[in-house]
Amino acid sequence: MTSVGLLDFLSANVAMLRKYILDYLPKDHNVPEIDLLYKMMRDYPSRPSKGLRPSLCILVCEAFGGKNEESIVSAAALEIFQNWILIHDDIEDQSEFRRGGPVLQKLHGIPLAINAGDALHAKMWGLLMRNGEILGEKICYLLMQEFSRMVDETTEGQHLEVSWTEDNKWDLTEDDYFLMVQKKTSWYTCVSPCRLGYLIATKKPLAKNSFVRFGIDLGTAFQIRDDILNLTAGKKYGKEIGGDIVEGKRTLVLINLIESANSKDVETIKKIMSEGKRKSPAEVQKILELMQKYDSIEYAKKRAEEFSRSAVKQFGQIFGHLPDSKAKRNLHSLVEFMVSRDW
Amino acid sequence: MTSVGLLDFLSANVAMLRKYILDYLPKDHNVPEIDLLYKMMRDYPSRPSKGLRPSLCILVCEAFGGKNEESIVSAAALEIFQNWILIHDDIEDQSEFRRGGPVLQKLHGIPLAINAGDALHAKMWGLLMRNGEILGEKICYLLMQEFSRMVDETTEGQHLEVSWTEDNKWDLTEDDYFLMVQKKTSWYTCVSPCRLGYLIATKKPLAKNSFVRFGIDLGTAFQIRDDILNLTAGKKYGKEIGGDIVEGKRTLVLINLIESANSKDVETIKKIMSEGKRKSPAEVQKILELMQKYDSIEYAKKRAEEFSRSAVKQFGQIFGHLPDSKAKRNLHSLVEFMVSRDW
Repeated sequence: MTSVGLLDFLSANVAMLRKYILDYLPKDHNVPEIDLLYKMMRDYPSRPSKGLRPSLCILVCEAFGGKNEESIVSAAALEIFQNWILIHDDIEDQSEFRRGGPVLQKLHGIPLAINAGDALHAKMWGLLMRNGEILGEKICYLLMQEFSRMVDETTEGQHLEVSWTEDNKWDLTEDDYFLMVQKKTSWYTCVSPCRLGYLIATKKPLAKNSFVRFGIDLGTAFQIRDDILNLTAGKKYGKEIGGDIVEGKRTLVLINLIESANSKDVETIKKIMSEGKRKSPAEVQKILELMQKYDSIEYAKKRAEEFSRSAVKQFGQIFGHLPDSKAKRNLHSLVEFMVSRDW
Repeated sequence: MTSVGLLDFLSANVAMLRKYILDYLPKDHNVPEIDLLYKMMRDYPSRPSKGLRPSLCILVCEAFGGKNEESIVSAAALEIFQNWILIHDDIEDQSEFRRGGPVLQKLHGIPLAINAGDALHAKMWGLLMRNGEILGEKICYLLMQEFSRMVDETTEGQHLEVSWTEDNKWDLTEDDYFLMVQKKTSWYTCVSPCRLGYLIATKKPLAKNSFVRFGIDLGTAFQIRDDILNLTAGKKYGKEIGGDIVEGKRTLVLINLIESANSKDVETIKKIMSEGKRKSPAEVQKILELMQKYDSIEYAKKRAEEFSRSAVKQFGQIFGHLPDSKAKRNLHSLVEFMVSRDW
């Protein structure tokens, strides 16, 4: 069960960040086309979001003695990062739904959606410059360097995942998957938010590997959980169920299925998964049934739990010595939530 | 005739910048997919380029007494800007060729090309942070703010142009076209390079409108010239001839054609131009013939000359008082070249 304190914190935090971001982004232009661009930039940031990444940044900062007003710019920039990269990812993955609504390119076409993503990307860097006023120029640079690394890692991870689908690649090991997830998800979901929060609180350059192992394990548990939710979740999840199968994503569940299934079933799986977006609902259902038949979803759950145990253990080592505080308790709940959420 | 001094400067400058950029961008990764991402990021920056924008920045800086080693980071970042935005523009415009070769998405597909553009975009900001070491943190911020404005303007201009084509919009005036060009082309081609060069040389914050009128006029002359070259140029131009017609672009030539043609011809033009990329070579030829019949290319040339005269006059006012130098002479030649080039 998710702690009430955490849920209250998350919902207040999300509302505060949304307001901050929408105040920052441009609105209303007398040229109708430019006005539409602004609306497109504001669309994903206006949709419901859990705000896990900025919350992680804010809580780590506070747990280490930093002030919330010092972390808000970086937290908002993390949320803007997720929004622009999701606009582009949704095009790259040919997704249908995002945060309870149609993806941006379904509403406005691919060309304008690519461009709106670029405009929002630049706004992320523009926002980060505000850290100069709040934290001084030295810290502002260090924070930008973290963002720079984060975009590098995320685009590398995205390239891995997209190219596997496009090349219809099947000779993938679990380690390939873990590398992809580390780059595509863990870095921007966990590693960077923690590093940013710590840097803002302590105002000292971080060691190269600070929070990296913890963030990778936490992010990997989070992503495997996300893969499983994509196959099993209810409406609250906000994306199409089985969407990863439709999109041909190489999840841990799928990789395990290919490793476990008999040769006839493997043939069926590869045939269906190679059809791109043309798969019928019955074919998606067939893949789901095979995932159940071979216990691949159960297997992925177990692997997620391993990563999750490792992350929780490291949490104790990294944060255990800190004085008790509301932020520390919320942070603990957030970590628990990230590895056990059902929405 | 282009001055020999300028051509020598441009070719030396382009070679120097290319080396600088390729040294800066990541290369070689032991994971083959990530290695491919790096190759994609390095592709456009490796292709032949005139380097007009970074050259403008470097020459303005030098003419105002700045050193070349102070402007190199910003000049290289301008070139990286053009490269990432061209990757995305080529997708948005469904272009075929760029700088003498197939566009990136023809080689690797749209999803990976979008992602490579994002990775290169982030590298632009990463590079700009180097200005902190060279010019101090204050100037570094001001330069980043110029880049931030530049991306804002360019994405607004791109949105205008793409949405006109997508919406098959015809009730466009010349002023609509000039606003679009000001944002899409002039800002990053002329206004920002001049402002950046001046800022680096003088190390003082710029007035809000410095170089804006000059840069807009120069950029507008440059873009109209580019529109005309797209209809008439030889192989050296590097893009497909008539590509703008195929892509349905609302150029000054086309807007004038619609205004000048009789109603039967207007009907033909709108019918052909509404066909998107399905236009036959004969249909493209038909549009070209009508452009000649109604003297629309000649008309656009005349308008380009007006902007060009205005830009040259302002050049005298802005740069005339500066002591004679090789940089000033090259700058003058560069401005002349930008408004009269045939490649």
